[in-house]
Amino acid sequence: MKYLFVLLLAGVTANAQMQKEQLNLMPWPQNVVVNDGNFTLTKNFKVNISGNPDSRIFGGVTRFLRRLDGRTGIFFEQGFITKLNEFPNAELQINCTKNGKIGLYEDESYSLDVKANKITINATSDLGALHGLETLLQLLQNDSKKFYFPVSQISDFPRFTWRGLMLDASRHFQPVDVVKRNLDALAAMKMNVFHWHLVDDQGWRIETKKHPKLIELASDGLYYTQEEIRNIVKYADERGILIVPEIDVPGHGSAILTAYPEIGSKVITLTGGTSEKNIQGTAISTYRIERNAGIFSPTLDPSNPKTYKILSELFDEVCPLFPGAYFHIGGDENEGKDWDANPKIQEFKKKHNLKTNHELQTYFTMQLAPMLKKHGKQLMGWEEILTKDLSKEAIVHSWRGPNEGMVAGQSLVDAVKKGYKTVLSNGFYIDLMYPVASHYLNDPMPKGADLSAEEKARILGGEATMWTELATPETFDSRVWPRTAAIAERLWSAENITDVANMRKRLESVSFRLEELGLTHIKNKAVILRNIANNQNIKSVNEFTNVCEPLKGYTRNKGGTEYQMYSPFTLFADACTPDAKDSLAFDEAVSQYLANKSADNKAKVAAFFNKWIAVNKGLVELSANAPLVQPILPLSKKLSDASQELLLVLDNKSTLKTADLKTLIEQCNTKDHADVELSVYESLKKLI
Amino acid sequence: MKYLFVLLLAGVTANAQMQKEQLNLMPWPQNVVVNDGNFTLTKNFKVNISGNPDSRIFGGVTRFLRRLDGRTGIFFEQGFITKLNEFPNAELQINCTKNGKIGLYEDESYSLDVKANKITINATSDLGALHGLETLLQLLQNDSKKFYFPVSQISDFPRFTWRGLMLDASRHFQPVDVVKRNLDALAAMKMNVFHWHLVDDQGWRIETKKHPKLIELASDGLYYTQEEIRNIVKYADERGILIVPEIDVPGHGSAILTAYPEIGSKVITLTGGTSEKNIQGTAISTYRIERNAGIFSPTLDPSNPKTYKILSELFDEVCPLFPGAYFHIGGDENEGKDWDANPKIQEFKKKHNLKTNHELQTYFTMQLAPMLKKHGKQLMGWEEILTKDLSKEAIVHSWRGPNEGMVAGQSLVDAVKKGYKTVLSNGFYIDLMYPVASHYLNDPMPKGADLSAEEKARILGGEATMWTELATPETFDSRVWPRTAAIAERLWSAENITDVANMRKRLESVSFRLEELGLTHIKNKAVILRNIANNQNIKSVNEFTNVCEPLKGYTRNKGGTEYQMYSPFTLFADACTPDAKDSLAFDEAVSQYLANKSADNKAKVAAFFNKWIAVNKGLVELSANAPLVQPILPLSKKLSDASQELLLVLDNKSTLKTADLKTLIEQCNTKDHADVELSVYESLKKLI
Repeated sequence: MKYLFVLLLAGVTANAQMQKEQLNLMPWPQNVVVNDGNFTLTKNFKVNISGNPDSRIFGGVTRFLRRLDGRTGIFFEQGFITKLNEFPNAELQINCTKNGKIGLYEDESYSLDVKANKITINATSDLGALHGLETLLQLLQNDSKKFYFPVSQISDFPRFTWRGLMLDASRHFQPVDVVKRNLDALAAMKMNVFHWHLVDDQGWRIETKKHPKLIELASDGLYYTQEEIRNIVKYADERGILIVPEIDVPGHGSAILTAYPEIGSKVITLTGGTSEKNIQGTAISTYRIERNAGIFSPTLDPSNPKTYKILSELFDEVCPLFPGAYFHIGGDENEGKDWDANPKIQEFKKKHNLKTNHELQTYFTMQLAPMLKKHGKQLMGWEEILTKDLSKEAIVHSWRGPNEGMVAGQSLVDAVKKGYKTVLSNGFYIDLMYPVASHYLNDPMPKGADLSAEEKARILGGEATMWTELATPETFDSRVWPRTAAIAERLWSAENITDVANMRKRLESVSFRLEELGLTHIKNKAVILRNIANNQNIKSVNEFTNVCEPLKGYTRNKGGTEYQMYSPFTLFADACTPDAKDSLAFDEAVSQYLANKSADNKAKVAAFFNKWIAVNKGLVELSANAPLVQPILPLSKKLSDASQELLLVLDNKSTLKTADLKTLIEQCNTKDHADVELSVYESLKKLI
Repeated sequence: MKYLFVLLLAGVTANAQMQKEQLNLMPWPQNVVVNDGNFTLTKNFKVNISGNPDSRIFGGVTRFLRRLDGRTGIFFEQGFITKLNEFPNAELQINCTKNGKIGLYEDESYSLDVKANKITINATSDLGALHGLETLLQLLQNDSKKFYFPVSQISDFPRFTWRGLMLDASRHFQPVDVVKRNLDALAAMKMNVFHWHLVDDQGWRIETKKHPKLIELASDGLYYTQEEIRNIVKYADERGILIVPEIDVPGHGSAILTAYPEIGSKVITLTGGTSEKNIQGTAISTYRIERNAGIFSPTLDPSNPKTYKILSELFDEVCPLFPGAYFHIGGDENEGKDWDANPKIQEFKKKHNLKTNHELQTYFTMQLAPMLKKHGKQLMGWEEILTKDLSKEAIVHSWRGPNEGMVAGQSLVDAVKKGYKTVLSNGFYIDLMYPVASHYLNDPMPKGADLSAEEKARILGGEATMWTELATPETFDSRVWPRTAAIAERLWSAENITDVANMRKRLESVSFRLEELGLTHIKNKAVILRNIANNQNIKSVNEFTNVCEPLKGYTRNKGGTEYQMYSPFTLFADACTPDAKDSLAFDEAVSQYLANKSADNKAKVAAFFNKWIAVNKGLVELSANAPLVQPILPLSKKLSDASQELLLVLDNKSTLKTADLKTLIEQCNTKDHADVELSVYESLKKLI
């Protein structure tokens, strides 16, 4: 009897363990226990809220119900939830001890207890309860006929307090609905910071009543009204998200200086035309909104009192729109060229004993700190603000790496050692089209560095940065998601949650579920492909996206001038994403075949080759009535040619010399076509 | 030589005629001439604007350029267009004589002349020029490598001055982005009126500062702010569209009366609980936002001075938001039940010598006219407002038909004969899921009626009405488009443009192109199907949508209580549309086979049966892990069973008695499953 009991228990445990592995939770919670049994959803399912939560919980629970309803098609009776203790006997009970404050260091923990007839979410604050509801949605399982939650206990809390996404609204303006659906996705991923990059060379995006010229001359009519900003701040608050606005100064100044050239640093020779005399008898340049991508010289003049007057007035108008405690002032990529060439600025440096441009920039930055402090805001800036005289209250945003000639994450270590709080973005540049694994394994907590507990505590977390040189409202989501979900896990979950294969499996489910929030990363791909295919069948071109990835790093849009900021991005590369779907599967097939050349393993590899030959054929047919297919034909032909020969190789029938075969495969290693690269090249090489 | 010349000319004409047939213009222009030759698009393509247009043309041309660029991937150099005569040598020249006024009777004509090296659009107003640009976009052709416009001359103008779409924002609130993308689609279809149904039993949707209770108590937090309304009005103006707002009174009053029960008509017995004593000593009811669909009794009290005070204040606040000259006050479906039961209202009728409730309603309506006139607005209402004392300035909106026990379009004839202007919506109820052909052939100009030229001139045009009992922001577009494009053609093009097959061919292209404006009618279908399939392959379920159509008329959501207004609509029926893709093709295959039982024709019919057998098999497999597939299985099984037997019939191998075969096929004539019906039933019947 004793043995039987043990066996039964073992059976239960094994079953439960299996279920835990099957769950597609992301970010993975700190503690998950799955037991036998299920809570089955029915039409009568109701929610009750008790305790002292902020009223944001009502909207949060109403949205939860609608999402669960949309997924399951059950048509719950409960409609809008507007008060506490509406249904004391409800199946889902949510209790929060206190009102959650939007900002850092708030208690975001929750516990979720699913029993066969009752579900309970307990949380200190409603922010934790909202996280718990997201976990519950991810827990949803089904068999062939019903939806249910497995009996389980989860307790959870975030590892880092700053889990952010930056959206660049300057280079390609991203309208309100893009912002809102991305806030929904952040909340679903338990992220809590939205960094809104509102000003850059390519446009000023904030309505200002005191300085309407910024909108009239420097926005192309593409900006957020103050009401829209307030509305988005409220929307974010309702989802537990802090908004950190950014006005990038003194560099990246083309847009500001288009409206206010008189506070620019550039001096030019007085030969008439585009210049005019100013009161000092020196000449000031005119500026225009930048249409290209890159680093440009327009920079605010730190020696001009009017610069500070305008900035102070802008902060007075913009700061009250954002209730959060942080304001990002950029401060990056100021090359100082215009400062060096401006005699007045040189004089100013001497007078104030500022030896380098870095010191001058710190002088500038420190003028801004009190303007922000007046509104209760702490200053944050990209790592270039980190110089010896910087106030210890500033937050240093670490971003540079090898591409900028720096050691990745070095500024983060420097910052915390010098007593600054810091946020990591190096390694989280999702606009650069690197694979998800590279971001997933990028931990804000540096491995090798010898940091004290106090220093470690200054590492607030990290932030995915989405620069929009190459992203329009139509493609923004597919550049951000699903990869940012993996970053969310890095920032929330335990340090040792690093299994890439397991993450990938869960990410697929998470990506699918993001669609229910209106994210367009899946559906807009088909839109682009339909346009490319000229409304013919998209099968071939879609299958080709499974082996193509957009050029990585800064290799697309060479020199920043190939595409303008107003260019559409409706090309094949814009339908492709990192982690092309077939690459991994093909690589596994190749590895298995090389390990064991069984007929089965050979057939699996051959199936890919046959598919790619068919894809090329399909694309050629498509191109007869689709000019946009033409640019991808050379690449699909290369893959098809290599595939044909490799089929012969598999059968030992190839008559090609090894060198010629190598050449054939080497042709697949190209970046010359359609702004994409073949993601299977490295795997192909393994076969010779 | 003479003969050769004639022959050559004939060849040119024949070729040109063929091209004209190939064009997918919609609405079809009044005059189209196509000649030999092409204007080929290149990167240098530029636009120049001259004359005296309204500044809306600059945005219009900029959007035109971006759309053309997105379609072709050419990356034009020209960015934002902000002034006249920027590029005097540009390939596309646009000239407008005058500034277009938004409203009825404006000159919207244009002429478009495409030569091999130059394109010219001449228009009286910029509104005509915007229409010309839409035609030019539809003219775009391609071969395998390039995009071009065929050399052609088009002159064009609308047949009716009122070409509208009504959006019901009350039953399911439709956010700003839904409204905006539909305005884009209207402009693309040369429609010029957006009728915005903002108030109904299910919600009040306008921010009001003087009466905040309407938002607080009667909107569920779902409403447009005044800034959003202004922003949408501007957006519409930029696209040449007049907005006609509607506040539906005195019926459909649940939402208004939820906030202001004291102006409601219902009296109840004083038994405490939900009622309270008012100053007259009679009892007033309380109300709640309606969650179901249907016609409800809550009605404003026309005998109460406070009713007029509140309405007057509301118009004072709402009218200035809308610069257009028309205001819709609803007036429909007031059943008068609460009026009959209210002694005070009965007394009021006697005192004012109002014999019927209709007369009482006219009394009510006529109190509103001066409130609107004060703001320069003409009153418009649904046809029930048409009674003998109605001011001749009012516009009568004809909507009832057999479903309401009336002769279709009778009120339109009555109205014009009595001297009223009128707009037709009967036959344009696109929410009812009828096939496109029924709307297309519904002409506002009645065929049989004996109307004078003056009377005919009072028929302003027509309006597609999209009620949203069953449409969410996710499905709204697929209920409206592409069918509304056919209505647009009815209202714009010549009366004799009625070839349904030709319309269908063009509609397919138009539907595809609407995607470039962000319309979601195609892409959101896949979203729904992915959810139904639980992220498995959607092939089978997608193919089944090709033979299923949502229940028509008022047969879905029986009694209006099956679904609530907050219910999600993510079911199979919500992915289906009228004019299911395979119905017509199957019907043609059946007709051809019955006319000629060749092996080829038989194979074509058999191919459908084999497909449907496979679809059922696929759905059964899918359902193992997709509860939302279950409700469609009985229907797919019926089609599969019939298909299997009919395959035998085709081969003369069926052993079934005719009666049994009939029963088998009759089973496909069901409305019992998943809110859809099989669109191929009638064609199946033809085979026995």
